[in-house]
Amino acid sequence: MSSLFKQRESAAVGEGHAWLEVQAALKMNTEGLIPAIAQQYDTKEVLMMAWMNSESLSETVATGRVCYWSRSRSKLWRKGESSGQEQHLKEMRFDCDGDTILLFVDQTGPACHTGRRDCFYNVLQGDEVVVDREPIIDPKDLYK
Amino acid sequence: MSSLFKQRESAAVGEGHAWLEVQAALKMNTEGLIPAIAQQYDTKEVLMMAWMNSESLSETVATGRVCYWSRSRSKLWRKGESSGQEQHLKEMRFDCDGDTILLFVDQTGPACHTGRRDCFYNVLQGDEVVVDREPIIDPKDLYK
Repeated sequence: MSSLFKQRESAAVGEGHAWLEVQAALKMNTEGLIPAIAQQYDTKEVLMMAWMNSESLSETVATGRVCYWSRSRSKLWRKGESSGQEQHLKEMRFDCDGDTILLFVDQTGPACHTGRRDCFYNVLQGDEVVVDREPIIDPKDLYK
Repeated sequence: MSSLFKQRESAAVGEGHAWLEVQAALKMNTEGLIPAIAQQYDTKEVLMMAWMNSESLSETVATGRVCYWSRSRSKLWRKGESSGQEQHLKEMRFDCDGDTILLFVDQTGPACHTGRRDCFYNVLQGDEVVVDREPIIDPKDLYK
């Protein structure tokens, strides 16, 4: 565990470290990525989980518009750039050991590429996994 | 993307697949792990993010008590086994591409090893990252 995050475990409320110092202490994986959970700030729905690299994290903080790293396309992914469904950053949090980010966001429309509000529509019920949400926008209308 | 999850993207509400088939289609990383987000089922606080392997996932489903894979200790981690602060499973969800799990849990006391209710107590404020929560139990009393 990074000593900066270790040190912060017993820090008093209000104690701060400079953002650039914290950013440098984040624990990226071997691909240079860190998981980021996006939670709708007012309803508290967990919308999705995606990955950031250092560049997408810096851009998100600088612009207030959430930018991930697309592992499938190997490029920066400004959420909403093709679907129009943007995520605006309300608050950014880091966990105790600095290896996960929690984003409070304001999500326009669906967060999921299937047109559903969130990505977690597969729910375990007994010995089956069932779809329990419908798209709020037809995915054909999201990506034209 | 797994064809099972791809197929489910356009499934109607109520459409199911057998749990064992879904479990086999989950996308584990190169270490055989999948991220699991724990959210308190009633307040919707995001408590923590940790990792599961196939065995911990099966055990969690079978027992209803959340079991992760501890990457630092390389063993099954039955949440609360040393701290007494258990997580009981209320609902389990899988995202659109089958590479993230969302757990609705009922967490006894603090989820975080620092004694805080959740792990995300480091918040970005301007150009500083500030601690904004106190432990609800002294960590010295959690691990005796």
